[in-house]
Amino acid sequence: MKRTDILIVGGGPAGMVAAATSRQYYSDKKVTVVKKGEKSLVPCGIPYVFGTMLDSPEDDMIPCGARAQKMGVELIHDEITAIDFGSKTLRGSVGEEYGYEKLILATGSIPRKPAIDNVDAEGVFFVPKDPEYILTMHEKVQAMGTIAVIGTGFIGVEIAGELAHSGKQVHLVGSRLLKHAFDPELSDYMEEKMLHESVRFHKNRRTMKILVDERGKASGIELDGGETLAVDGVILATGYRPNTELARRSGLSMRQYDTIYVDEYMRTTQPDVFAIGDCAEKRHFLTKRTVPIMLASTATAEARVAAANLYKINLVKNFSGTIDIFSTVIADTCFASAGITEEDATKQSINTVSSTVIVDGKHPAKLPNNHRQAVRLVAMATSGIVIGAQVIGGIDVGEMINILGVIIEKRMTVFDLLNLQVATHPLLTSGPTSYPIVQAAQNIAVRHIGR
Amino acid sequence: MKRTDILIVGGGPAGMVAAATSRQYYSDKKVTVVKKGEKSLVPCGIPYVFGTMLDSPEDDMIPCGARAQKMGVELIHDEITAIDFGSKTLRGSVGEEYGYEKLILATGSIPRKPAIDNVDAEGVFFVPKDPEYILTMHEKVQAMGTIAVIGTGFIGVEIAGELAHSGKQVHLVGSRLLKHAFDPELSDYMEEKMLHESVRFHKNRRTMKILVDERGKASGIELDGGETLAVDGVILATGYRPNTELARRSGLSMRQYDTIYVDEYMRTTQPDVFAIGDCAEKRHFLTKRTVPIMLASTATAEARVAAANLYKINLVKNFSGTIDIFSTVIADTCFASAGITEEDATKQSINTVSSTVIVDGKHPAKLPNNHRQAVRLVAMATSGIVIGAQVIGGIDVGEMINILGVIIEKRMTVFDLLNLQVATHPLLTSGPTSYPIVQAAQNIAVRHIGR
Repeated sequence: MKRTDILIVGGGPAGMVAAATSRQYYSDKKVTVVKKGEKSLVPCGIPYVFGTMLDSPEDDMIPCGARAQKMGVELIHDEITAIDFGSKTLRGSVGEEYGYEKLILATGSIPRKPAIDNVDAEGVFFVPKDPEYILTMHEKVQAMGTIAVIGTGFIGVEIAGELAHSGKQVHLVGSRLLKHAFDPELSDYMEEKMLHESVRFHKNRRTMKILVDERGKASGIELDGGETLAVDGVILATGYRPNTELARRSGLSMRQYDTIYVDEYMRTTQPDVFAIGDCAEKRHFLTKRTVPIMLASTATAEARVAAANLYKINLVKNFSGTIDIFSTVIADTCFASAGITEEDATKQSINTVSSTVIVDGKHPAKLPNNHRQAVRLVAMATSGIVIGAQVIGGIDVGEMINILGVIIEKRMTVFDLLNLQVATHPLLTSGPTSYPIVQAAQNIAVRHIGR
Repeated sequence: MKRTDILIVGGGPAGMVAAATSRQYYSDKKVTVVKKGEKSLVPCGIPYVFGTMLDSPEDDMIPCGARAQKMGVELIHDEITAIDFGSKTLRGSVGEEYGYEKLILATGSIPRKPAIDNVDAEGVFFVPKDPEYILTMHEKVQAMGTIAVIGTGFIGVEIAGELAHSGKQVHLVGSRLLKHAFDPELSDYMEEKMLHESVRFHKNRRTMKILVDERGKASGIELDGGETLAVDGVILATGYRPNTELARRSGLSMRQYDTIYVDEYMRTTQPDVFAIGDCAEKRHFLTKRTVPIMLASTATAEARVAAANLYKINLVKNFSGTIDIFSTVIADTCFASAGITEEDATKQSINTVSSTVIVDGKHPAKLPNNHRQAVRLVAMATSGIVIGAQVIGGIDVGEMINILGVIIEKRMTVFDLLNLQVATHPLLTSGPTSYPIVQAAQNIAVRHIGR
């Protein structure tokens, strides 16, 4: 049996950050990561393998062996098939046994397969965070001319954009774009941008089945209403589910959406066993309900909490619930969202008020590389607490959404934002007179400020 | 006598935001702005008139007449020479009288003249926020080949960079670059970048006098030690002082650095009289001492507070002290700072600890437009409260510093940052595993986290 002090199952962002942080905090402890396969990749980079990195998909691969060595972490390639919490041992796929002092499960998530015909046919792809699969898929997709992308979440929209960018004809099928992250008017704007990329968007249509030719290879899709589209391949970007079969079989307490129960310190119901990332339960920052949020940034934050608390409680996961926060790029325009949309808030019976402000991203506006910038704030109507934000603009949007993330996390109100202290610079930001986060807050606050 | 409801003296960013916000909150009130001169400009854009906007300096001008009209604000061109708080009247330069219900002083700041010979000679310029002056200066500077820029604060460094960019030979004289905003190692990096722009930097040298030719025109400068440099012109970027002579003469209570006393609601010691922006007192966020911080973004935040509180107290200036927060661009690299530097903290006897982290600004690093990114955090050694931050990188640094502004304003600790919820995206940000704000926090927190 191989013995280690801190054993981490899974080599994705959560697992690797847990390993690095453990090494930093407990330099005398042995840290071991067990992961499937030899390669690792940047999961959020997968869509860009099909366009921006078309000629060098290996740029998305991580030299995890070298990194582990540099961190002083032992890396083992194996698949764990069983855990015995009593004896604190795990079993690998060829019978190897691993003993631990502290165990961190970071088993991630796997694609969810929709219940339609022929999802396993040749020419049909999922988007697993599996380097070998993605490299093979990358090669096969190159030979195709027309591709159907099913699903209009981040992965579907990004892959559709990248395929179009690389010269493919794309049929994109799903609901309005990124509907969980953006209110309708912002989705519509994104749709406009997508159309310039010659993606044909079948909006609010459902894929009823995948059609196959006589050799069993995908040749088309059938939409609701019976319309069929001839394609050379199909990419199913229809969401993910936690990879928690092992945890369930081993007897860990589970929660909704097949997630592993964890407390604020990322501890499962078993002593010395932690779970982090996509496989661990997330609770919504407003409703505190379990939510299926899967983000590498959330996963790495949880990894840092788990590592800090392995031996003694040092650090509470001080976010009181998970905020959906992400950004993406569609045809040179950046889109980002944090918190809850107004549409979702309404569904949750939250009384909201919102404002959208559009400004120039540089000041004066005639400076080079100016990009129009839109900020939408969603606040609670009574207290003015900011609960959601959506931003469109240039690449600075990628960090602008993180200002809004802190604002939401710290329960700041639109009144707080009226006199937010910000840096503005002609070449970098909108003007101090029009800074859009503040302006949107003012548009909401005006209802409350009187004489 | 002209009567109005809300009278604002000054048409800079603070005055115009106060006017616009007053109109938004009190739509039935008459709002009047009295300002000197017909034109307005974007003050932070001034340096860029000498390079980026060389061929179109009017791009930095604001059509303030049209804007005022659009806002429903009356704009009067006059210079106020006296205020009588008893009768609530102001007197203009040609004898016109103005009556007010509420008065907001937003008189800004003017260049500080150093006590050296020949500062008023021909060919010597200051950098006032005066459109007519700047346009004339722009024309005269174009005819010059070699120019001395005295002062290494933001304005001096930016003008030196822009002049070099437009083909001039530049002598820059002063202390290390932006020493109030950056710790030495970051200043040094900035210096390296400046050198690529062929600016000759006379570091830690003092300008003893300006030399003039037989016609009284500036022809050189003499440094400490006696070295002389032949130049065609001299630009004095030696700081600003509040433009508060009128306020002092009128009997308002004053504070250190010639600022007007204001409370948390921007009220002066006279009923119905407010002061905002560079002319109003600022207190430091950590020491609460009066500090000479002059920023358009701070000024506009104060304008919004004043406008909200004109008739009833609606909004406290909820920042408990002013944070120095700004950004700039030197030779395609962006630099930004918020809060206090470690050097300044040490001078103030604050017990600090810091960490600097350098990462790739995109992930994977081989994606297009990757820019290395450095984040330095300064925290209190005991509590871990973040009190300063410095960032170097691509243009997203302009918004990244605003995340850090909120972090400092909300008194967040490095422990809070360990599990900050951020959005990361391959094309927009560093990786979730290495997000530098979090990584720097972890490097500081490690001293406190044990087992």
